[in-house]
Amino acid sequence: MAEKLRIAVVGAGYWGPNLARNFSTSADWELVAICDLDRERAEGLAARVGRVEVYTDLAELLARADLDAIAIATPARTHHPIVLAGLRAGKHVLVEKPLADTRARGLEMVEEAAARGLVLMADHTYCYTPAVLKIRELIADGQLGDILFIDSVRINLGLIQPDVDVLWDLAPHDLSIIDFVLPDGLRPKSVSAHGADPLGAGRACVGYLTIPLDKGAIAHVHVNWLSPTKIRRMVIGGTERTLVWDDLNPQQRLSVYDRGVDLAQQSVDTVDRRSSTISYRLGDTWSPALPEHEALGAMAAEFAASITDGRAPRTDGRAGLRVLSVLEAATRSLEDSGNAASVEGAATRAEVVR
Amino acid sequence: MAEKLRIAVVGAGYWGPNLARNFSTSADWELVAICDLDRERAEGLAARVGRVEVYTDLAELLARADLDAIAIATPARTHHPIVLAGLRAGKHVLVEKPLADTRARGLEMVEEAAARGLVLMADHTYCYTPAVLKIRELIADGQLGDILFIDSVRINLGLIQPDVDVLWDLAPHDLSIIDFVLPDGLRPKSVSAHGADPLGAGRACVGYLTIPLDKGAIAHVHVNWLSPTKIRRMVIGGTERTLVWDDLNPQQRLSVYDRGVDLAQQSVDTVDRRSSTISYRLGDTWSPALPEHEALGAMAAEFAASITDGRAPRTDGRAGLRVLSVLEAATRSLEDSGNAASVEGAATRAEVVR
Amino acid sequence: MAEKLRIAVVGAGYWGPNLARNFSTSADWELVAICDLDRERAEGLAARVGRVEVYTDLAELLARADLDAIAIATPARTHHPIVLAGLRAGKHVLVEKPLADTRARGLEMVEEAAARGLVLMADHTYCYTPAVLKIRELIADGQLGDILFIDSVRINLGLIQPDVDVLWDLAPHDLSIIDFVLPDGLRPKSVSAHGADPLGAGRACVGYLTIPLDKGAIAHVHVNWLSPTKIRRMVIGGTERTLVWDDLNPQQRLSVYDRGVDLAQQSVDTVDRRSSTISYRLGDTWSPALPEHEALGAMAAEFAASITDGRAPRTDGRAGLRVLSVLEAATRSLEDSGNAASVEGAATRAEVVR
Amino acid sequence: MAEKLRIAVVGAGYWGPNLARNFSTSADWELVAICDLDRERAEGLAARVGRVEVYTDLAELLARADLDAIAIATPARTHHPIVLAGLRAGKHVLVEKPLADTRARGLEMVEEAAARGLVLMADHTYCYTPAVLKIRELIADGQLGDILFIDSVRINLGLIQPDVDVLWDLAPHDLSIIDFVLPDGLRPKSVSAHGADPLGAGRACVGYLTIPLDKGAIAHVHVNWLSPTKIRRMVIGGTERTLVWDDLNPQQRLSVYDRGVDLAQQSVDTVDRRSSTISYRLGDTWSPALPEHEALGAMAAEFAASITDGRAPRTDGRAGLRVLSVLEAATRSLEDSGNAASVEGAATRAEVVR
Repeated sequence: MAEKLRIAVVGAGYWGPNLARNFSTSADWELVAICDLDRERAEGLAARVGRVEVYTDLAELLARADLDAIAIATPARTHHPIVLAGLRAGKHVLVEKPLADTRARGLEMVEEAAARGLVLMADHTYCYTPAVLKIRELIADGQLGDILFIDSVRINLGLIQPDVDVLWDLAPHDLSIIDFVLPDGLRPKSVSAHGADPLGAGRACVGYLTIPLDKGAIAHVHVNWLSPTKIRRMVIGGTERTLVWDDLNPQQRLSVYDRGVDLAQQSVDTVDRRSSTISYRLGDTWSPALPEHEALGAMAAEFAASITDGRAPRTDGRAGLRVLSVLEAATRSLEDSGNAASVEGAATRAEVVR
Repeated sequence: MAEKLRIAVVGAGYWGPNLARNFSTSADWELVAICDLDRERAEGLAARVGRVEVYTDLAELLARADLDAIAIATPARTHHPIVLAGLRAGKHVLVEKPLADTRARGLEMVEEAAARGLVLMADHTYCYTPAVLKIRELIADGQLGDILFIDSVRINLGLIQPDVDVLWDLAPHDLSIIDFVLPDGLRPKSVSAHGADPLGAGRACVGYLTIPLDKGAIAHVHVNWLSPTKIRRMVIGGTERTLVWDDLNPQQRLSVYDRGVDLAQQSVDTVDRRSSTISYRLGDTWSPALPEHEALGAMAAEFAASITDGRAPRTDGRAGLRVLSVLEAATRSLEDSGNAASVEGAATRAEVVR
Repeated sequence: MAEKLRIAVVGAGYWGPNLARNFSTSADWELVAICDLDRERAEGLAARVGRVEVYTDLAELLARADLDAIAIATPARTHHPIVLAGLRAGKHVLVEKPLADTRARGLEMVEEAAARGLVLMADHTYCYTPAVLKIRELIADGQLGDILFIDSVRINLGLIQPDVDVLWDLAPHDLSIIDFVLPDGLRPKSVSAHGADPLGAGRACVGYLTIPLDKGAIAHVHVNWLSPTKIRRMVIGGTERTLVWDDLNPQQRLSVYDRGVDLAQQSVDTVDRRSSTISYRLGDTWSPALPEHEALGAMAAEFAASITDGRAPRTDGRAGLRVLSVLEAATRSLEDSGNAASVEGAATRAEVVR
Repeated sequence: MAEKLRIAVVGAGYWGPNLARNFSTSADWELVAICDLDRERAEGLAARVGRVEVYTDLAELLARADLDAIAIATPARTHHPIVLAGLRAGKHVLVEKPLADTRARGLEMVEEAAARGLVLMADHTYCYTPAVLKIRELIADGQLGDILFIDSVRINLGLIQPDVDVLWDLAPHDLSIIDFVLPDGLRPKSVSAHGADPLGAGRACVGYLTIPLDKGAIAHVHVNWLSPTKIRRMVIGGTERTLVWDDLNPQQRLSVYDRGVDLAQQSVDTVDRRSSTISYRLGDTWSPALPEHEALGAMAAEFAASITDGRAPRTDGRAGLRVLSVLEAATRSLEDSGNAASVEGAATRAEVVR
């Protein structure tokens, strides 16, 4: 068996422990260090994952020649300097979503990684769940046909974040998933965002995103911190079949409906236009069995494979950048009464270079 | 017992038979005639509800002096002339939703009724279901507190209508319900509408409405003809409680959640702003028992009572006009890439007069 | 088109109107009369289904030479004399469940019909629903493999019947369905019944039936009048697949699970017997689309076809007799503290004769 | 704060790690050792919970004078000797369900503990979940009124155990819960058990228990290893209200229905007995909020409190003995074709002594 890659986790707060636990049990990785400004927190985590080394100084950590990669789980506004420092020290980098707090900074990170030939991967964990991997596969196989609409709902009684609104808090999940399952990724020209802050929290607690897709299709995302019922459901309608992903129904997460509307060519002047032009398919429903694996494990494996194979990971920095581009446009739309805001081109120099 | 009011049903197509059956079995009404351009269709219906008279000529029907009212179930574009003819013949009028095909025509109808002191009622049937009546009552009683958000989803595999888009076909239900349960009715200043026609049907088959409400609240409506799963659910979030209406769950249609987010006054510079400013209520859930009655029966009773008492019915023409105003603004928004369109004032001369 | 068969409905109470409405709209049948001791009730029903003739005297009705068949919807204790009178007058007979109030009377009816070459059909309506027809087909096609267990739950807040217990009221549904879908019908040697009458209603309001099937399989039925939640679910486990029928979920009535336990041949002395002898299949779930038709219509068609073709209907008198045999044994078991009671052979002279 | 009690976990297999983790983080307990015949397994677990001591020899462990209690998570057939050894060494004992493999051995354990004034507690973990604690409280408060019926379903695709049938594997959960929530515990005179082994696994894989309760009430338990759908639901019907516990619905685990059947005194000779004697309550449904805590933590606290307070724990050895008595009778019934088997008196010398 090949030697393991060596990684350190930067940030021992909410998400860092999950990353640490995963890398520490991965067949591909050896977790060698935890880095956090708060030494006590870092040591607590280090103890729980097998007494790895502890750093409070990032530069000191990055100076280690035996380190292949870092995984960053710090607040979004700190991603830019830490990622750049990591890349400049020659380390591959995995970074929690969102990639950065602005598109411009995200772009700089992507270009830095490309210029150095290093892997920059976005931790879009949901994309590595069995359900989302299956959705991607079904769409790639043409099982759904052309995509007609995507409707995603992610609502729950949620913590009102002190620094970001509900769109930046929750929608990265939906957007990164949509980016992941669409064969060409999420590259809309514009986005409209609506929100409400009815409690006076200082930021939107209810948010809606509308995203025009190619060929007249549409994507819509509803995120909400104020709902007492929890819903996590995505419907993806296609010309052939429609898929419903109900993430809170472990007994039937995915349902593929072989039913829909067929539109025959329009006959202009019939008495009853309805019957002549439309027919329904009321076919079977099918719920594929999903393998059971932890998403974080699959993500860690993908990070390792992309380094070993010298290829972009499935959720590379540019995927993170596309999500960021939509979020940034959403914020502009929100500030402009929901009027459509153009999304800055996700095509970057990086795409040309690589 | 008082003498029954006498009514005729105009239009024997899809909805007319429901109206006819209801008025024919009502304690308040005597159904005396069916009117339809298609004599055979009118006669078929007349036979099924007890051999009432049949007309193919509206003027002839309206000439009957013993007729108190007409109930109109014809295509929307014909509402305007038929309603006006009815009113001018001195009849009270019930008209299927939407009130008219344009706001201007609806306004003319409302004003004509007001000028003549006749009842013009919109057949917003859903408003008379036990669930919606209970929602209205709960809000009026202050059980929900101030309204924070309303999210309504009405999706299903639906017939693509030959003349109207999905917003005009389905959203009148949601809008009339929202108008009915809000203490001041639905009187937004603007609305944003997004839609998609990914099958090339010639009109939106997927639609989203965003409606800013008072005090920073928001209403959102999702209607969809292309969804293989059927959902009819409205969430109404309030400062005190949040209500979920799941119309497809007969065993628990309404759930009232005594849980939510409380926002204490903002302390500016604490270390952990979250804990200092937010608290959660995780209270009980309560599902009120609903009486079992048919909505159409309650609507027929309300029509009769409004005539007898000389008062506006709960869903009067102006309610229908408010719905129409939002729909018309929605169409303008749809044509303007989803940019917010202003809603024409629902306040009419009629409101002053009456 | 062939001439229609002519039928009269006997009994205009709870179920009679459903039968009358169905026969009056059937392509195979002409409804010619309603018979009920209560003339007013008979006339009321007759008016609603198109002014057919009314009888209060059964003998008078049966004297009509132009009558081909009668459909009986009277209390169970009256089935025996009415069915025999009908058969002796040369009429084919459809009779509501249960076939009779005792097995002996049921047997006499079956033998009388056989001796006269007339059709005696049990109105096991559920068997003609799209779901049950599909279950029968799936089992016949071997899709489930050998049947391992059947578990049926039918509970609801129900009217406490004045004359029969919950087993006789509700279990005929489950038993007739099980009889219908099992390739060889329901022919158990014994049955155990447990019940409770905790309200002192004078009869069991909660009931459980346990029925040993061939090859070590088992069927179990739970019926309950006291449950505030309504459940109608049958699970049929097979060696190949397992089927769940949830009759209250119109969006997914049938689910076929391609998952289960495989038992390899037993290896006697392994260290870990579990892993060596058992494997799990976690395959897909499949929900077949069901045609939409009314069960009563399909039943009326089957009654007509069996007469025309000179064959036994799918739910013939002997099927009704098998259900009756189990019920009668259940009552004996109930009176004997739930100890197993033998089921009298459902094989009758009739089976030999026909 | 008082000194912590000191405990060792015996058995490091499937359940032991859960016990160890819980005692190691408990405010009441200090976990001091792990004991297992397999040293490697014991050391693995010891490392994960903070490097406690490891024993492979039970006698050596029990010789520690500083040890207050042991928690046993070994196979059922070994409970008897280990518990007795623990008690005879003066240790309080917690033992995994079932208490023992025979009632006689369980009785001996209970009497030994009573004689020595030591706590013997059954690890009926489910009883300490928020849902079951709330059910117990609701019943004790009279919210349900008198209990009419209990129906418990616990089915899933389950591992076929090599040594016990499905009744002994799963029903201890249901029985211990029923024992816990009934004010007087589960003390039936008899039980009937039905089972099936349709795969030829050598033991029942599908099982049904029927248990007559006081005043004509009934309890019924359905356990099943072969069901592809997972159900864990208990319905408890009372004269006042009925409770449904759906353990797989985290959003609404408990529902209390204020609806039911009222039976007025029977009037003998009315025309329509139904209407005169029965009335329905269709009241509200209420779903109490449940605190979030881990059951094992509450159980550890109860074990500590019972020792400190010198009282019996809520799920003491006699509760375990009552469950065992029912299981043993169930086995006898199963071997006797489901005929009712008498349950040996759960009243023991221990009950007199304590």
